[in-house]
Parts: sequence; structure tokens; C-alpha cells
Amino acid sequence: MKIGHIHHVAIVVHSISASLPRYQTLFGLEPQDEPIMFSSQGVRLCFLPTGPDPAARIELVEPVNEEGGVARFLATHGEGVHHICFLTDDLPASLEALVAAEVELIDREPRPGAHGDVAFVHPRTLSGVLWELLEVR
Amino acid sequence: MKIGHIHHVAIVVHSISASLPRYQTLFGLEPQDEPIMFSSQGVRLCFLPTGPDPAARIELVEPVNEEGGVARFLATHGEGVHHICFLTDDLPASLEALVAAEVELIDREPRPGAHGDVAFVHPRTLSGVLWELLEVR
Repeated sequence: MKIGHIHHVAIVVHSISASLPRYQTLFGLEPQDEPIMFSSQGVRLCFLPTGPDPAARIELVEPVNEEGGVARFLATHGEGVHHICFLTDDLPASLEALVAAEVELIDREPRPGAHGDVAFVHPRTLSGVLWELLEVR
Repeated sequence: MKIGHIHHVAIVVHSISASLPRYQTLFGLEPQDEPIMFSSQGVRLCFLPTGPDPAARIELVEPVNEEGGVARFLATHGEGVHHICFLTDDLPASLEALVAAEVELIDREPRPGAHGDVAFVHPRTLSGVLWELLEVR
């Protein structure tokens, strides 16, 4: 299987509005759009492009309630890198290849993400990193 | 200050030779070159491009002795994301701007890295992430 380039690196923060000015001032990064409320996951997202495509984006992820994996991550680890997201042209085929390789998946079926269909691969699979695959819609 | 795009995301692993086949098989990533021994830091490095420039690379980092920050990171945290590296065209100017913003730096002066001059920004500065700035030589 050949997947695409890194689409974004997700960073969990307590507050996008509190963090964003530092990204702007220190690194000159500007949000692509207004933050997106992603209610099904209990998070708000803000994407910061770091260059023209295919440069990776920074994704700031803020939990908006106490439930959900991101709120638990923040309570346990504090702010930090949450996952790395690769693009794929064909998410069902990518998942099929990973299942065939006996990879531990969090999502065996694509589910809706902020930019398209996504699926997560368990950190136990490779280097302790939570990997996301994204097929842009 | 405006910095450049994400050059790489560094992942600490116990062994590059043990991890690399999984990156190749699962994600179709291939090393750019042979692993680089970077003795002054006590690590071996392997870069995996994820697409054409300016796509970010994965950098696998393996400690080659028991001393040094990377070996301590591995002992404490296990395998996982170690830092995110941004390019800059002018590292001394970037550091000057960060000092003026009263940022906590690990390196106040550029030092030699695998691809050029580098400096690290302390994780306390922003989102608990260790940030690297790289001026390619």
C-alpha cells in the first residue's frame, strides 16, 4: 500500500483562543478558516497551514466537554501531539490492506471527519503513534 | 516572524531496523538515504519522505547509547512523537525574534543538525510540544 503525504499533525490544547495568538506571533501561522465545531467528537478544530500544498498543517484540537478521547488525553497527558494524519486516495482499500496485515485498527470502517472520511490506527501498531488516514471528500 | 513549512515530525523508536519494515509495508514509505549516525547527539536518524517537497518527512530517531535526551525520552515515555521541525530561512533572526518574545529556548545559538543548523524551543513555550527550527545548509 502507498499512502499520501502528511496532511496534518494534531495538537491537543486546552483552548484554541488562548493558544492561537502564540502560533501567530511566534511562528507566523494563520488559521485557514474559523475554528470548526465537530460535535460528534466533542471537539473544536483549527487548521494552520504551514506552507503551500503538500505542506503539512497544524491542527489544534480543543475538547468542548469532559467526555470523549481528546478530553481524556488532555486530562492524562496535558497538551501535546495527539496524532499524525496521512492522506489516502482510497480509504476503504487502505483499511483492507491494513486488516490483511493484521494491524490493530480503531476504526475498521471509514467515519466522517472534518475534511472527509477518516479512520484511526491504534498506537500499538507502530511506534506508539496514533495514526489517522484521511480521504478528502 | 514567518517561518517555513513543517520539514519533519520526529518519532523516537527503539530500533530503526526493527521499525522500518512496518513503515514500508503498512504505509509504503521508503527511506530517503541510509540511516545517518549523529554521534554528538547519540542517535541514529532515518528520514522517510511522505511526498514531494514541501511535504513533511517522518524522522525515525534511535538512541545508540544510554545517555542523552532521546534515550531518556524512550525510557520515560516509550516510543512516540519527539518533536516537530519547522524550516526557517534565517535561524539567527528567528532565534532573535523568539528571544524578544521571551520564549524559553533550549538552544539560544544555532547548533549543527543532520540537515543544517538547528535550535530547539522548550515544550513549555507552546502546547507541550518540542519544536525544532532548521535552516538547511
